Amino acid sequence: MAKYVYLFSEGNKDMRDLLGGKGANLAEMTNIGMPVPRGFTITTEACTNYYEQKETISEEITNEILSKVEELEKMTGKTFGDKQNPLLVSVRSGARASMPGMMDTVLNLGLNDDGAVGFTKATQNKRFVYDSYRRFIQMFADVVKGYPKSAFERHLDEIKEKKKVKFDTDLTEEDMVEVTNDFKRIYKEIAGEEFPQDPKVQLIEAVTAVFRSWNNDRAIYYRRMNDIPSSWGTAVNVQEMVYGNRGNNSGTGVAFTRNPATGEKKLYGEYLINAQGEDVVAGIRTPEPISKLETDMPEVYKQFVEIASKLENHYKDMQDMEFTIENGRLFMLQTRNGKRTAAAALKIAVDLVKEGMITEREALLKVEPKQLDALLHPTFSTEALKKGEVIATGLAASPGAGAGKIYFTAEDVIEASKRGEDTILVRLETSPEDIEGMNHAKGILTIRGGMTSHAAVVARGMGRCCVSGCGELKIEEEKKTLTTKNGKVYKEGDEISLDGSTGNVYNGILESVEPSISGDFETFMTWADDARRMKIRTNADTPKDALQAKKFGAEGIGLCRTEHMFFESERIFNFRRMIAAETLEQREEALEKILPYQRADFEELYRAMAPYPVVIRYLDPPLHEFLPKEDNEIKELAASLNMSFESLKSRVESLKEFNPMMGHRGCRLAITYPEIAKMQTKAVIEAAINVTKEGIEVEPEIMIPLVGDINELKYVKNVVCETADTLIKESGIVLKYQVGTMIEIPRAALMADVIANEAEFFSFGTNDLTQMTYGFSRDDAGKFLNDYYAKGIFESDPFAKIDETGVGALVRMAAEKGRSVRKEISLGVCGEHGGDPASIEFCESVGLDYVSCSPFRVPIARLAAAQAAIKNKKN
Amino acid sequence: MAKYVYLFSEGNKDMRDLLGGKGANLAEMTNIGMPVPRGFTITTEACTNYYEQKETISEEITNEILSKVEELEKMTGKTFGDKQNPLLVSVRSGARASMPGMMDTVLNLGLNDDGAVGFTKATQNKRFVYDSYRRFIQMFADVVKGYPKSAFERHLDEIKEKKKVKFDTDLTEEDMVEVTNDFKRIYKEIAGEEFPQDPKVQLIEAVTAVFRSWNNDRAIYYRRMNDIPSSWGTAVNVQEMVYGNRGNNSGTGVAFTRNPATGEKKLYGEYLINAQGEDVVAGIRTPEPISKLETDMPEVYKQFVEIASKLENHYKDMQDMEFTIENGRLFMLQTRNGKRTAAAALKIAVDLVKEGMITEREALLKVEPKQLDALLHPTFSTEALKKGEVIATGLAASPGAGAGKIYFTAEDVIEASKRGEDTILVRLETSPEDIEGMNHAKGILTIRGGMTSHAAVVARGMGRCCVSGCGELKIEEEKKTLTTKNGKVYKEGDEISLDGSTGNVYNGILESVEPSISGDFETFMTWADDARRMKIRTNADTPKDALQAKKFGAEGIGLCRTEHMFFESERIFNFRRMIAAETLEQREEALEKILPYQRADFEELYRAMAPYPVVIRYLDPPLHEFLPKEDNEIKELAASLNMSFESLKSRVESLKEFNPMMGHRGCRLAITYPEIAKMQTKAVIEAAINVTKEGIEVEPEIMIPLVGDINELKYVKNVVCETADTLIKESGIVLKYQVGTMIEIPRAALMADVIANEAEFFSFGTNDLTQMTYGFSRDDAGKFLNDYYAKGIFESDPFAKIDETGVGALVRMAAEKGRSVRKEISLGVCGEHGGDPASIEFCESVGLDYVSCSPFRVPIARLAAAQAAIKNKKN
Repeated sequence: MAKYVYLFSEGNKDMRDLLGGKGANLAEMTNIGMPVPRGFTITTEACTNYYEQKETISEEITNEILSKVEELEKMTGKTFGDKQNPLLVSVRSGARASMPGMMDTVLNLGLNDDGAVGFTKATQNKRFVYDSYRRFIQMFADVVKGYPKSAFERHLDEIKEKKKVKFDTDLTEEDMVEVTNDFKRIYKEIAGEEFPQDPKVQLIEAVTAVFRSWNNDRAIYYRRMNDIPSSWGTAVNVQEMVYGNRGNNSGTGVAFTRNPATGEKKLYGEYLINAQGEDVVAGIRTPEPISKLETDMPEVYKQFVEIASKLENHYKDMQDMEFTIENGRLFMLQTRNGKRTAAAALKIAVDLVKEGMITEREALLKVEPKQLDALLHPTFSTEALKKGEVIATGLAASPGAGAGKIYFTAEDVIEASKRGEDTILVRLETSPEDIEGMNHAKGILTIRGGMTSHAAVVARGMGRCCVSGCGELKIEEEKKTLTTKNGKVYKEGDEISLDGSTGNVYNGILESVEPSISGDFETFMTWADDARRMKIRTNADTPKDALQAKKFGAEGIGLCRTEHMFFESERIFNFRRMIAAETLEQREEALEKILPYQRADFEELYRAMAPYPVVIRYLDPPLHEFLPKEDNEIKELAASLNMSFESLKSRVESLKEFNPMMGHRGCRLAITYPEIAKMQTKAVIEAAINVTKEGIEVEPEIMIPLVGDINELKYVKNVVCETADTLIKESGIVLKYQVGTMIEIPRAALMADVIANEAEFFSFGTNDLTQMTYGFSRDDAGKFLNDYYAKGIFESDPFAKIDETGVGALVRMAAEKGRSVRKEISLGVCGEHGGDPASIEFCESVGLDYVSCSPFRVPIARLAAAQAAIKNKKN
Repeated sequence: MAKYVYLFSEGNKDMRDLLGGKGANLAEMTNIGMPVPRGFTITTEACTNYYEQKETISEEITNEILSKVEELEKMTGKTFGDKQNPLLVSVRSGARASMPGMMDTVLNLGLNDDGAVGFTKATQNKRFVYDSYRRFIQMFADVVKGYPKSAFERHLDEIKEKKKVKFDTDLTEEDMVEVTNDFKRIYKEIAGEEFPQDPKVQLIEAVTAVFRSWNNDRAIYYRRMNDIPSSWGTAVNVQEMVYGNRGNNSGTGVAFTRNPATGEKKLYGEYLINAQGEDVVAGIRTPEPISKLETDMPEVYKQFVEIASKLENHYKDMQDMEFTIENGRLFMLQTRNGKRTAAAALKIAVDLVKEGMITEREALLKVEPKQLDALLHPTFSTEALKKGEVIATGLAASPGAGAGKIYFTAEDVIEASKRGEDTILVRLETSPEDIEGMNHAKGILTIRGGMTSHAAVVARGMGRCCVSGCGELKIEEEKKTLTTKNGKVYKEGDEISLDGSTGNVYNGILESVEPSISGDFETFMTWADDARRMKIRTNADTPKDALQAKKFGAEGIGLCRTEHMFFESERIFNFRRMIAAETLEQREEALEKILPYQRADFEELYRAMAPYPVVIRYLDPPLHEFLPKEDNEIKELAASLNMSFESLKSRVESLKEFNPMMGHRGCRLAITYPEIAKMQTKAVIEAAINVTKEGIEVEPEIMIPLVGDINELKYVKNVVCETADTLIKESGIVLKYQVGTMIEIPRAALMADVIANEAEFFSFGTNDLTQMTYGFSRDDAGKFLNDYYAKGIFESDPFAKIDETGVGALVRMAAEKGRSVRKEISLGVCGEHGGDPASIEFCESVGLDYVSCSPFRVPIARLAAAQAAIKNKKN
């Protein structure tokens, strides 16, 4: 028979899959003798079972939970609902991977009318007991039952008005009893039944709520963002309550063994005297720094410092800990490997190696590749910072620079971002509902909340810059205004800049500068380069991008999209002339005009990227993408092309497609208009000849897109080779070039062996391959994919993380088939997946030669490739 | 060393792949002692070699040809260009499969100035010699060099005018010499060089022209229509000339051993006294029936009858022969298995079995499945024929009924057909350039030409009805008018009806009746049913279609597209209301209104198809397909839906898609709107319950479209089963149903083993699977596929004939994976390929259980499945 519930004393840190991160670590701390309130963990398997049983907790599991309650009662000497000394517990979720703020927590569970009497006897503090009771009723209604909490809050406000007091703390013992009775009444009105007095019922309902919350929208979104499978489920931790709010020798706090923003090796954290844990995390009161605990309670502080150091040595990583002090006694409520900024992650990793605690390879696995993103984006220039007008200063909660228009709700941020605006999310304080908006914003500004508030923790996790606790600004969320202490009012859409490294808020948009790789970052990346097998190339269409990517460590261009070279005004004009051409002669004439630009671009690209390879993809998008759509624009273009409006309009019409993604594009264009491929070949080869004369070594790799049949490739390759060979012969210079193909059509993967007879390299275009393999277009899938996530059909976006079952199977098949015919064929990926760590891991497992990604993803890809190689060797 | 040229005496009928059909049969006839003019065949491998060598004939092959010319000179005692008795030859193409009218022919090759002198000595007929010479110059210019023939024709007209004569035959010996000299001059003007006097040069150029013609547009189109690979190439036959135009004891003709229109066992054909072979085929003069030869030349006739009978017995099939009589001496120029109408094919096949000449299985292989199409389309009703106004009568060249608007060029027919019009192609006479137009027309009417004219032969091959040689109508092709002998004028777009079985032309559109399967057809189909392994189902959305298909032998419905049930005006209204719904409640309300219709439709379908299975596909197309697009229509609909224009317009906008083919459709709809699947399940199951109560046995097969992931199927299946099981339980009736899926997304094929865990059957939707596997949409591919055919990249339309390399590989993979998990899984095809014989052969090779096709294709599929089973057993 499966075991679904474990006492803390029965588990250990390696049982994370079963007990969740929190549960496993509570067990571990219990076993190494740390002061942990007693309790038990209901396993993730119980959660899975709950979903298998159509969202019910089986009788077997219910009985097991209740029998563990009895054991807990024995251990603590307290009983559920006891009139003398009742057992009160917290119920907390705890998944395998940390999901901060995602899951719901219930405190004070076990309180009922009898228990309140008993608890009063035990604590001799009736006001405190009924304050806890009324909080529990509201939390139970809100978190467990999903009823609106506004009815309770409104009532509390009315009571305060009636009693003519301003704060909850001003309410008396009698007031609290009254509020509790009122809350029970309100509960009954909403629920249609009495507030449950049986603590066992309360418990099972709470556990159910935690299980259910595994599939709430926020949790699903967070999982999708962080690649966490929904099949994992969450564990539930049931733990004896301890109280940080029992007076001035009580308190609660959170702390890190090192600074999570900088990585500095120094205890870092904050605490609140006379408060419950949730008060710190929610950022409602601004807490004291942890160092002040030394003055307030020197003994407790000493004990805590010892525990912290022991935990870091035990876990060999920086720890993020929660603790509560009840009447001068320290309790550890949680420890886990702490979230940290990218800079801190690098410093800690390098320091831990220096301290001899871990190896370089272990260090490489400690940094989340995606985190590096934060270090790869611009910071404000010193110049800009000097001139910048500081309008306020808050806490430097998450480093980096963010500038944009301010919006006051997550929804507004999302909408504005979709319009292409850079946005700053401004909130009194953030809550889990805001996560999606935070992800869209360039920066987050909160008025309340400390360094470990929700906003700060989540922003650091996202690598998004954040200034929190900026209390000198006044926010009116309904009016959507922000007022500085000087009285200047910022309205929705006004522009500000945030420096997450200093906490400064600036007026307007500040100029920013390029990041660079140095110090710990550089050291760390050297280790990564030593560890990886795959090369990292970049997708770059301009010399600027190419240079940036090279600075970030790119080892070649994996994809140059030649059509992106046509968007400057003069170029687009000739390009449009080419498209509008009605005869071959007209087309060739227009192409002649385009040739010099393209040749010059290629020369610059070769120079920028030398001595690394450059893959040039031939014209890919359907031609209508380049033509105007509206009549007035067509008229204008017709005039400048010296064409009649009618004939241009009819050309535009004739190019329209029902499904452009599956239309006349890629190599299909080169087959209809071989003269375009001829011009592009001229540009590629002539440019190569020119830079060769400068002494630069170059071997262009010409890539034919959207091949689905060997005859397509043969035809275009023939055009390419005839043109290229003639030019090379004429030049008298020795120049090699390769002709290869994208594998982005399922059929190409299926016949990759045949195609490899002609193709000297394959580059997997996983964007298109994903579209075709799934049969949905990226542009349209947005409409229904949200339903897919909500209903648990998809867990991650196949355009972001490669689908190993389908798309991956085709990639694997094509790689094998390709190699079976041409052993040394070069294989790479140039879709967006080339910059996604999970997808890079897949590429390593298939044995691809390189991945190619956007310049700013290159360092991420270098680290991801290193991690993949290390993990691959282990397997 | 490869042998590229064979004397007729070196070949035989089994060497068709190497010598082509014509060459192999000329060799065979030579060897069984029939009078065949001597000659040799240049092999298809020489043609392949020509294309491999970038369209040049290698020196090796040239030398081999010229050495065979020397042998021919020895055998005939004639020499190329001889001043006494020159050797003259014909040069004809001859591919493996007969391609009538597709390839070019050159006659009288070897004539030059010296040869003309010698030939005059030999024939004592100077006028005949120079008539031949001037024809040869023109033919060489036209066919071999591709120069326009108009210059020559214009000049001939001028000469006739100058000489004041009407017909060529009125020109004298001197006139012909003059014309010959003029033609040589005109040739030089056009070509920029003298007309080649060296017969060897003439020959090599002519062979080159034949090879080149293998890839002309008409040949490519014909091959595509008939599934002939371009890799086969054509052979070239070089044969001593014999002349049917040397006076009244000469002549030429074509004949069939049985009647190619009816199959009647009686020599059938026609001939022309004093004419060359091309005159008969081109239909320029109307010839005499073959029976008249008995009176004209009794000895020759007797010899011919004997030969014909011997050939039919030898080839065990009806023969199509060409012959020439030169000065009373009979020469056989060709024999081949004759093209025939479908009715004739069936009668001949059944008769040959009755005559003991072949077995039933052999008979099954003798009928081209696609031909049956001609017997499966309506004929005019007796009533309509009685009342019909006959406006003219021509030859009953190809049976069947055709009615539509008249057009005078192939291009106009193609355009009108694309607009959805039924068309009749009206031509003075047709030529190979017209083939595509003929294929689009419902019928073909020609003014000139006999039963074996181009129009008649091609129309019979296509199963298209044709009335030829309708000389009583006057055509003015430039004016686009047709005038009856009563002076009534029909203009472009006017309507007529053709009865290809009587040769009658009717005014207006005549009512037609359904075909039926009886007599020889029935006998033959019984043999087919005995021979086949696969079941044949039909794609039917209405009871009418289902009944029709059942009459044609369908064994179930393989695809019922439920959305097609919504197009009646009241239904579409409620359906649109459902789509426009803004809330779940509104949508459910609209669905409630749709339910009764759909349930009633299903009841009728079950009744019509019982006891066979019925596969019902759930809603598939994107919803915007059902909504109006124009503002005024939207306004109208909004008013009747009681919605504001703005909100309906915004709904229409929100449903728009960039790539609808890859959009929100198929099971994706059921996931967003499970209530639709619920309603459809109610309709399917309630209908089944109702007819079960009537005592009809039914087991509905519910098919979920566009599945690409197991979770999609799970989700929808869950909705289906919950709804269905509740209804069945409530009904108290025992009812089984299946839930299966389309395999039409590449990913579904790749993970078919996983999907088979949930799917009780697979139906391959090869239309969509082809689109996704190739990455092009059917609607857009038309724009570039013509370039693909022209450039030899594709040989056939992958939407018509299944692509075995890519799409077929996925089908095979999915079938294997599906069976590996669910051994008895039912596998079928329901794309258009289900009615295509070549694709059916593929399905047999994969071992599918059934194919499903449109009702009118069912008999074709039955025969194709039988042939596939027979061929599969042989392998």
